[in-house]
Amino acid sequence: MSERRGRRGGGRSARQAARGAGPIGPAVTHLTREIPPVTVVADEGLELIEHNAELILEQVGIDFRDHPESLRLLADAGADVDGERVRFPRGMCREIVTSRAPSHYVQHARNPERSVPIGGDATVFAPCYGSPFVHDLDQGRRYATLTDFENLVKLTYATPSLHHSGGTVCEPVDVPVSKRHLDMVYAHIRFSDKPFMGSVTAAERAADSVELARIAFGGDLGDRTVMTSLINASSPLVWDASMLDAAGVYARANQACIITPFIVAGAMAPVTVAGVAAQTLAEALAGMTFVQLVRPGAPVVFGSFASSMSMQTGAPTFGTPETALVLYTVGALARRLRVPFRSGGSLTASKIPDAQAAYESMATLAPTVLGGVNFVLHGAGWLEGGLAIGFEKFILDADQLAMMPALTRGVDLSPNGQAIDALLEHPPGEHHLGTEHTLANFESAFARSDLADNNSFEQWDEEGRRDAASRANQMWKDRLAAYEQPPLDDAIDEELRDYIARRKAELPDEAEA
Amino acid sequence: MSERRGRRGGGRSARQAARGAGPIGPAVTHLTREIPPVTVVADEGLELIEHNAELILEQVGIDFRDHPESLRLLADAGADVDGERVRFPRGMCREIVTSRAPSHYVQHARNPERSVPIGGDATVFAPCYGSPFVHDLDQGRRYATLTDFENLVKLTYATPSLHHSGGTVCEPVDVPVSKRHLDMVYAHIRFSDKPFMGSVTAAERAADSVELARIAFGGDLGDRTVMTSLINASSPLVWDASMLDAAGVYARANQACIITPFIVAGAMAPVTVAGVAAQTLAEALAGMTFVQLVRPGAPVVFGSFASSMSMQTGAPTFGTPETALVLYTVGALARRLRVPFRSGGSLTASKIPDAQAAYESMATLAPTVLGGVNFVLHGAGWLEGGLAIGFEKFILDADQLAMMPALTRGVDLSPNGQAIDALLEHPPGEHHLGTEHTLANFESAFARSDLADNNSFEQWDEEGRRDAASRANQMWKDRLAAYEQPPLDDAIDEELRDYIARRKAELPDEAEA
Repeated sequence: MSERRGRRGGGRSARQAARGAGPIGPAVTHLTREIPPVTVVADEGLELIEHNAELILEQVGIDFRDHPESLRLLADAGADVDGERVRFPRGMCREIVTSRAPSHYVQHARNPERSVPIGGDATVFAPCYGSPFVHDLDQGRRYATLTDFENLVKLTYATPSLHHSGGTVCEPVDVPVSKRHLDMVYAHIRFSDKPFMGSVTAAERAADSVELARIAFGGDLGDRTVMTSLINASSPLVWDASMLDAAGVYARANQACIITPFIVAGAMAPVTVAGVAAQTLAEALAGMTFVQLVRPGAPVVFGSFASSMSMQTGAPTFGTPETALVLYTVGALARRLRVPFRSGGSLTASKIPDAQAAYESMATLAPTVLGGVNFVLHGAGWLEGGLAIGFEKFILDADQLAMMPALTRGVDLSPNGQAIDALLEHPPGEHHLGTEHTLANFESAFARSDLADNNSFEQWDEEGRRDAASRANQMWKDRLAAYEQPPLDDAIDEELRDYIARRKAELPDEAEA
Repeated sequence: MSERRGRRGGGRSARQAARGAGPIGPAVTHLTREIPPVTVVADEGLELIEHNAELILEQVGIDFRDHPESLRLLADAGADVDGERVRFPRGMCREIVTSRAPSHYVQHARNPERSVPIGGDATVFAPCYGSPFVHDLDQGRRYATLTDFENLVKLTYATPSLHHSGGTVCEPVDVPVSKRHLDMVYAHIRFSDKPFMGSVTAAERAADSVELARIAFGGDLGDRTVMTSLINASSPLVWDASMLDAAGVYARANQACIITPFIVAGAMAPVTVAGVAAQTLAEALAGMTFVQLVRPGAPVVFGSFASSMSMQTGAPTFGTPETALVLYTVGALARRLRVPFRSGGSLTASKIPDAQAAYESMATLAPTVLGGVNFVLHGAGWLEGGLAIGFEKFILDADQLAMMPALTRGVDLSPNGQAIDALLEHPPGEHHLGTEHTLANFESAFARSDLADNNSFEQWDEEGRRDAASRANQMWKDRLAAYEQPPLDDAIDEELRDYIARRKAELPDEAEA
């Protein structure tokens, strides 16, 4: 509800700030869904899918590979462990998850005003994650660098519709794999005060992330959850050691894990929506169960990443109806488990910020918002199936995200919202432009795009016939130029830098990715 | 259900045809919504809005201007007529509409295989309507001509995702206003065999449309509804003579009218969603009541066209959350009235087929499909707030429309859809690419875009780095080049031409628009 009060109470200046007129506006930490989540499968159908997930867990089982700790924990909890294969008695995972995992939690930010609620009716937007390439109109597509990473963190900080700084917003390939997690976490802390994600590619990198967070938060985290990190399954039906290790580190520190089956339907799962949903549920239940055995009550998010596939080439495809149906269905399954849900974003296979990119992104964003996703990774910037993050795409997506609160807020049925006085006092044929009700509500009546050109053809022509991507190009440059770093205590900064210098000296330049 | 059976039973050849590989595939007459309509206002809220609409009808009333016939009919039915102002006793309109108007009807096409169901769970897509300009990448933006009109009818005919030929797909400004309706209706009949719309700008043009349809359908329409035509209100709260005249002509011939309040919120109505919805309902109820008094049982469609407004310039804006909320709300009101609903489309204020156009169009199309719209005008081609129809935009939009049946079909929970055998027979870690279930379902598993580029960056680079609009440019040219005219009986064609020649000789070149 906070953004609702903020918007209504704030008036013109708050709106201008929220639109990004200044370097950064007042904290908007999430949007609140006040409309019912969209349902595409009735309860009996959801029960059928849950039944199928239990069959998978019971009869096929899940591999926990190269990870004795998880095998021991799961066996102790009653699972049937055969080598690395773990089979779960019916209902075991569901019982453990529903009885131990929190239905929602707060991820604290370095700036307490930017702490975000994860779960319930809240939706939090974060930027893209994991792209080795960056794209912009000036330089085209190229490998990402640490400078790109820092610029994307700065842009996210300066973009009110992104509530969360994200994690690996791009892969800074100019820093050795073994060390780049230190620079990434530091960039989130230094260049932003929004909440962020930690490294997951190895246990020691997760431990470094926790340690850097501890320093950033003043030396003692206590029970505070200050990171939400991305733990992907190796679908189908496999959890591997590096992800389990990282999840274990985070869980022990009471940091949140997004337990995400990552499925290109037809490759990592059957091609059907109900099949993908059942497998996603099985894999997520197994992963969340592991986390709850490591530390009962540690925050977990039920993640789902599902794409369809090109029948011609086997390439993943985005913005298709089937992926929307998976999202709606798995979202309903997550609500029945009473855990937060992560999915969706602004996904596309397009290489550039063209019409394909926008159709596909909005075809993903609409179900993301309507389906009740709580944590939205890849909210802004995604291009070519995640291989690249685009600076213009980032701005274009964020502009759409900024309008979503007006959708989830639903229909205002207050006396002012009904406008019945205005309707009854107004004779036929006379326009409403100057009425008291219109003047009182005009400023806040409609969500505004900062990027849309709504002018006449003639005015657009005079102004140089710029397309949306070209306007976005100007905007990210303006936003970076206006960027002002949030305050960071000098002693903390020094301690962070010392820690990083020491660790970089210890770590080899070469490491397995 | 017809497209469902068609898709499942048809296999590869049907799919190829449906993708437009040939000049025109087997008839796909509509899509069927098998998921519940999205709801954003609970029943009590809808009752409140209905109550407010009744207050408007009762206390303010609606002007029926320059139209004694409607005043007489309405007075006879119990309305309070004061000059041109008509006030309705509470519940009068609702009672007349719900007791007389059909909940659904079939609009017959010249080719019976292409007749479309209007209402219920069916959705029918038609192209844009009313643009004086056309746009393409080769010639830019220019005034539309009859050749453009004919090309758009041909393209619509050759595009399976458009079930309906539409009406004034553009305004052929090279033909006098007084005569162009004859050429437009003739083009729909000659160059397509899909259902179409008649002229509404004057009673005699509506009568010409009915007469041409009568000839096209073999001389006697009987009770067949063969046109669905667009009757717009002069919002706020005014119906004018030309539209009422046309509606009267159509109703007497049992032809369908889409009774559409046309509202830019803040100008023709208050700025709030609930205010727009109440006024829309009041205006539509009054218009539908008139039609039902002219001929009880004549098909009517409850129309809603609502845009938001730029606070800076007063220009209409599209794809905003508020217009989606209006659509969802008015759709629910239409279902409660048990009449078919028209709204939505692929709307944008952009001047070109860029990312803005695509974001805004999908942000309109998603609620159109999820909100249960039965008749979708402006489904393809819309640019710059309807001032232009774009050839590339037409192709891009139609490509998205083609994927919507896979969304409304919902989740297949059959044994094959559940894929439980595939899930249970498949060990962890092994991909599903070659499994029996995948091979059996691969061909029909995912909705495919004909325009999306899902290839690698390198391949896209090699192929010339074309954006979506450039690919669409090639596609409309290919589709026009492959166009083959559907059969039309020579005697009927001659009779149509004779009628048109006679009428053109009678009509003055100059007329009021």
